[in-house]
Amino acid sequence: MVLMADRARRRREQSARALDHGVITSMKTLLLNREDVGSLISMKEVIGTVEEAYKAFNSGQVIQPAYTCIHLPPPRGEIDFKLAYCETNEIISMKASSGGFPNNPTEHGVPSGMGTVLLFDAKTCALICVMDGSLITGLRTGAAGAVSVRALARKNAKTITSIGTGNQARMQIRAIREVMTIESIHAWDDQLQALAQYKADIEREFGIPVVTARSKQDAVEQADILVTTTRGKGSLVEAAWVRPGTHIVAIGTDTQGKQELEPEIFRNAKIVNDSIAQCIEKGETWHPLHKNIIHGDDIHGEIGEILLGRKPGRETDDEITIFDATGMAIQDNTTANLIYRNAIARNTGMAFEFTCP
Amino acid sequence: MVLMADRARRRREQSARALDHGVITSMKTLLLNREDVGSLISMKEVIGTVEEAYKAFNSGQVIQPAYTCIHLPPPRGEIDFKLAYCETNEIISMKASSGGFPNNPTEHGVPSGMGTVLLFDAKTCALICVMDGSLITGLRTGAAGAVSVRALARKNAKTITSIGTGNQARMQIRAIREVMTIESIHAWDDQLQALAQYKADIEREFGIPVVTARSKQDAVEQADILVTTTRGKGSLVEAAWVRPGTHIVAIGTDTQGKQELEPEIFRNAKIVNDSIAQCIEKGETWHPLHKNIIHGDDIHGEIGEILLGRKPGRETDDEITIFDATGMAIQDNTTANLIYRNAIARNTGMAFEFTCP
Repeated sequence: MVLMADRARRRREQSARALDHGVITSMKTLLLNREDVGSLISMKEVIGTVEEAYKAFNSGQVIQPAYTCIHLPPPRGEIDFKLAYCETNEIISMKASSGGFPNNPTEHGVPSGMGTVLLFDAKTCALICVMDGSLITGLRTGAAGAVSVRALARKNAKTITSIGTGNQARMQIRAIREVMTIESIHAWDDQLQALAQYKADIEREFGIPVVTARSKQDAVEQADILVTTTRGKGSLVEAAWVRPGTHIVAIGTDTQGKQELEPEIFRNAKIVNDSIAQCIEKGETWHPLHKNIIHGDDIHGEIGEILLGRKPGRETDDEITIFDATGMAIQDNTTANLIYRNAIARNTGMAFEFTCP
Repeated sequence: MVLMADRARRRREQSARALDHGVITSMKTLLLNREDVGSLISMKEVIGTVEEAYKAFNSGQVIQPAYTCIHLPPPRGEIDFKLAYCETNEIISMKASSGGFPNNPTEHGVPSGMGTVLLFDAKTCALICVMDGSLITGLRTGAAGAVSVRALARKNAKTITSIGTGNQARMQIRAIREVMTIESIHAWDDQLQALAQYKADIEREFGIPVVTARSKQDAVEQADILVTTTRGKGSLVEAAWVRPGTHIVAIGTDTQGKQELEPEIFRNAKIVNDSIAQCIEKGETWHPLHKNIIHGDDIHGEIGEILLGRKPGRETDDEITIFDATGMAIQDNTTANLIYRNAIARNTGMAFEFTCP
């Protein structure tokens, strides 16, 4: 172990020299648990940072490799690894997130999906933060819906229809209420108990009246804004039900095989994607493309292009707008970075030295 | 935050139920720093676990996606993310490792390359360990050379020639001495000071005499085993210098553009790869393939096939054997898992709860 000792000595000398020149020598990594993460960021902040993410993505300031997924043997689910480098904040992020482990709670006492985010300082590639990542996907996905509402919904929109009543359906409301006044929510779910629970929770948490719809059609026909957040694998919403002027936030479909909208809805709509590359491969947009209802150049553009003012958002009160969101690593990047910055500012979390100097 | 509180309550109830049934409920993640990692594993253990890795790889028990690399703008280097799932140990590993940041030590007081390994329990995808990953690549790469020596070098091999005198050149000696008695080392480097330092370090640490060669040819002609560990980008070793019966451990070339051996060396050699898919794309094996000196079916096989007894190792004292090692995520997986198991057994490291129950 003489070589190791030599190297350690050389490193100490280098550190000492670096200190002499007044540069950063800290190699501490900040650890943030789930509770820290939840306390460190507001939905308003997430919406702002997701907007920044979309803009950076469409300004050529982002490297976002295709994500890697490992599928475990059934009944286990999968774990995804999503990476992004952002030039504007000089942060490299890696989010590992698992899902679809139905036996976790009962057999192992852990949630059916979990997450971890690593942040690296892109100037040095030092690991600056390890944070629990189980809240971040829900938050930045909710924020995505709100960003699209601001860019694409009618300014006089008042009612939201929610097809799906799970965690993300609630997160969408939590986010959208930050950018508009929601007068009422029309909700539908084929699980009546889940629907009743959603109504009770939303009314208690946000004070927004929820109408539990008798049918999907009833619900959709009431929508100024239609939000779909199911795990659907077929058409749930028919084109005939969608009123002119509706803005659709299509969240559920983020992988091949999932579907929520009748592809015909896309025919004359203004179609906006978070990432065209992702949406045409595994988003809701895949379905009308695959059925030749639309072609690639019928896609209006990416949300970042609208936020940057390079393409128009909504242009008339009558057009149907669709925001297809498959979720991007750059959203995790900017959101986790803001959580990290807030943690430093508020002296939250625990420091750990992985690389002893 | 009522919804959050509800979910937390439900999770506590689930955990309580899970406890009732006597199942694991701990969500603690073990943190291991560089010093912990260095103290928790011996080179002998790494050699054993890398052998297990190669065997698992060739037994269809490994999922090892193509790795992802983010290149930063010069003068910065890159960061790689390497993933593997191993069925035999039920561990998913993710190693982030950076390299090529020449200004790190002087400008930022941190090493020019760093690493982090995450381990997930594949039964649940819970994060069980975060460890410093700056030692693991060196260790498992050294071990790879030793595994190949055991499978492919002549049993009466005594002398090693080392082309390259950096960290990995030392690690190769540290590993190979575990599987044979090294009588002498013939070393060459174009940096005379580095060569002298290598001689001094190796003789002090291992007591093996090092001959500093006057030329590469002199050094190579002495070799029973030839180890190349440079950052070479052209042919460093000529075919005419390599004696019959030599075993070559080709370590340096792990990416397109690197090269250490004259491709002609491959013509009549027994060529063994760690992963054929990787070696034909970015290993030393790419060069003779590209020059049509060999074809795909001239590759004898993968090292795991030899370890499993499915293919012969060395068959005569005269044949030249080449082990081309590009490095595999499954080596990180089994090595990091052994470090983790040792840490648990020896009560080393610090526990941190990322997901508060």
